[in-house]
Amino acid sequence: MSQLSPLRLGIAGLGTVGTGVVKIVRQQAALLSARAGRDVVITAVSARDQSRERGVSLSGYAWESDPVALAKRDDVDVFVELIGGDSGPAKDAVEAALASGKDVVSANKALLAHHGQALAEMAEIAGHVIRFEAAVAGGIPVIKSLLEGLAGNEITRVMGVMNGTCNYILTNMEKSGRGYNALFDECAELGYLEADPNLDVGGIDAGHKLALLASIAFGTQVDFDAVELEGIQRIELQDIKHAADMGFKIKLLGVTQMTGRGLEQRMTPCLVPDTSPLGQLDGGTNMVVIEGNQVEQIVLRGPGAGMGPTASAVMGDIMDIARGNRVPTFGVPAAKLVKATPAMAASTAPFYLRVGLMDKPGAMAKIATILGDAGISIDRMRQLGHVDESAPVLIVTHKCMRQSLDHALEAMSKTDVLTTAPVALRIENL
Amino acid sequence: MSQLSPLRLGIAGLGTVGTGVVKIVRQQAALLSARAGRDVVITAVSARDQSRERGVSLSGYAWESDPVALAKRDDVDVFVELIGGDSGPAKDAVEAALASGKDVVSANKALLAHHGQALAEMAEIAGHVIRFEAAVAGGIPVIKSLLEGLAGNEITRVMGVMNGTCNYILTNMEKSGRGYNALFDECAELGYLEADPNLDVGGIDAGHKLALLASIAFGTQVDFDAVELEGIQRIELQDIKHAADMGFKIKLLGVTQMTGRGLEQRMTPCLVPDTSPLGQLDGGTNMVVIEGNQVEQIVLRGPGAGMGPTASAVMGDIMDIARGNRVPTFGVPAAKLVKATPAMAASTAPFYLRVGLMDKPGAMAKIATILGDAGISIDRMRQLGHVDESAPVLIVTHKCMRQSLDHALEAMSKTDVLTTAPVALRIENL
Repeated sequence: MSQLSPLRLGIAGLGTVGTGVVKIVRQQAALLSARAGRDVVITAVSARDQSRERGVSLSGYAWESDPVALAKRDDVDVFVELIGGDSGPAKDAVEAALASGKDVVSANKALLAHHGQALAEMAEIAGHVIRFEAAVAGGIPVIKSLLEGLAGNEITRVMGVMNGTCNYILTNMEKSGRGYNALFDECAELGYLEADPNLDVGGIDAGHKLALLASIAFGTQVDFDAVELEGIQRIELQDIKHAADMGFKIKLLGVTQMTGRGLEQRMTPCLVPDTSPLGQLDGGTNMVVIEGNQVEQIVLRGPGAGMGPTASAVMGDIMDIARGNRVPTFGVPAAKLVKATPAMAASTAPFYLRVGLMDKPGAMAKIATILGDAGISIDRMRQLGHVDESAPVLIVTHKCMRQSLDHALEAMSKTDVLTTAPVALRIENL
Repeated sequence: MSQLSPLRLGIAGLGTVGTGVVKIVRQQAALLSARAGRDVVITAVSARDQSRERGVSLSGYAWESDPVALAKRDDVDVFVELIGGDSGPAKDAVEAALASGKDVVSANKALLAHHGQALAEMAEIAGHVIRFEAAVAGGIPVIKSLLEGLAGNEITRVMGVMNGTCNYILTNMEKSGRGYNALFDECAELGYLEADPNLDVGGIDAGHKLALLASIAFGTQVDFDAVELEGIQRIELQDIKHAADMGFKIKLLGVTQMTGRGLEQRMTPCLVPDTSPLGQLDGGTNMVVIEGNQVEQIVLRGPGAGMGPTASAVMGDIMDIARGNRVPTFGVPAAKLVKATPAMAASTAPFYLRVGLMDKPGAMAKIATILGDAGISIDRMRQLGHVDESAPVLIVTHKCMRQSLDHALEAMSKTDVLTTAPVALRIENL
């Protein structure tokens, strides 16, 4: 093993994660070499700003201002894409790397969620691999667990809390009693939000991750467009309090499972039991739950972001390539990944509803009638006192289909008794 | 990939786990083939009793009554050792398999904890691999996570609850209010105990697992004899109650870390905060916590035993071999694994002490004096009412070295004021 040539990395993108990877390669060279059976070295790097102080020396590395040029260099074996974005330079550079005979390691969930199938096919034809552990749940080796450790299982369900910012907001709303907007502003100040905050609070970032896990779990082509997405922007303190009264926490929860009607993928705020592992997950930590026909249930928990944890995941992929471990991008050859029929919320569940009702006679009756007409029966219902002509009504339904509920919500919106659009949250009894 | 020849398994040992593996290979053949890029087949099996009904067909497999003969067969690529035991047929057959050019997959923690270094060296010289995911924490892909996913980390600490039977007894003592002996008998009836129950309740089985994780984490030769071992047999209901009053649970906790004085490995009953992930772990579930300089902390949780979960781990190893993933047994070449200096309990901690005191003047003073003389200061102390001339005294110490405490306990045993040997449990503030 020790006579193998060094593995040469070209790193594109020297933000937090890229800098973290450079630090590991420089500071832990002996450890990496012992474990890989060969040296792991950086030959060239690329970023937008060469002069920026990054707290780590880049001496000895060639500088490329164009990541595509970096991807094509003859002295690079593995192209490490830490640029981000689902198109533009990241995509161009990854394609250039595969076309010019490199393996690729990427932390880019948006790129893979949108172009994973095409890139996997391209890698396969070229005889190269794409690895992306850092794209899902930060430092948690969840892709490796699903793709390799649990390869003897028919996977039945994957669930997870995979956006630390959303979980930070939701858990701190409960702990501090401050509202969504205050916590959102705090996250902005702390640098916890993406440049486009809707990626976080709109559930898009977490939806990207879920789509990648679904592909590996079920051998299907990545289909981010089929993910049922809902953000946390409309969650109010009173929702969190009422959920707590019933023994639940509100989490932005991803769930994917193969049903008789097709592939279910959803990333939506849900009520989960406060005693469940997912319910107990506080702050910015991520958790992924994998269920398989043999293993029953595995729960993986760890930091979902940050320099060290994300760089750790990138290095895990690099070390696999250094050791000669080569697995198809999504676990089976790209040509064999099947196109799944999307099944929007195919499974029934009870729902928590909050409806702002006008203070006039017959208002409550209208709402109850609409639910009854939609075939939805009410488990519990409670009307709170009026504030400014509006009274919140809280309803917990018996199990129903999301579609039936959506029809009922639409019918409610056509009445003249609502003061605000209703909030409907699925209750997951894990 | 699809033109690769089938991977041929020889399975020795057809108990629960072996039967589970046969079922997966027979019932999920298409899935395994798609993921591995080649067929995975069984060519021969071996067990003590050929006539036993196992609920799965063995037709088409050659039968060998001698596992060594199975290990030497020309039509076997991977020898799957599910016999158990740290010597005898399991060891003979694994050695024969390596000597005759086979890779080995084993679920045998005792064998690897006692002979891991010698076997790893033998495998390396032969150019073959030994994989043993199923030997540690059942279905949880903990070895894969540590060995591969976190290969970019300097591992700082590994902790875990890794014996489901002990955790079942301890959590059910608290829930049901029944004593240790009643729960032990229940476990015997339920088939939760090893043939030699001391392997479970004496902490030996969990100690084997800890020694294997320590080797991978720190690049050291497996050294089970250096594990500080203590069982759960002396834990009483009152210990569990007093721990609960202080906000702790009692767990059989494994901890290994590299300290300035050497490698610390201990598997002992400890008090852990009841709000920590380890404290919240109920019943037969296992949990492993891995801390690294980059990843911070990863928590892995899942079933520690049972047919499906253990067979899942065995299949994960088989699938790696089928895919050509080959990593040294303990993560670095066997010849590079270093002999660590054992550091028995090198780190200080507060301790919980329960001392049975005779009902005579000056008894309490003697105990307090002995602790003071050993340099151990008392944080809290409480004497309960006398029962049959004996009064339990509960003491929580400030941080001290285990060695100092052991000296004090020895001094106490030489007095004439004790009614029972003291119980001393480390308090881990995770």
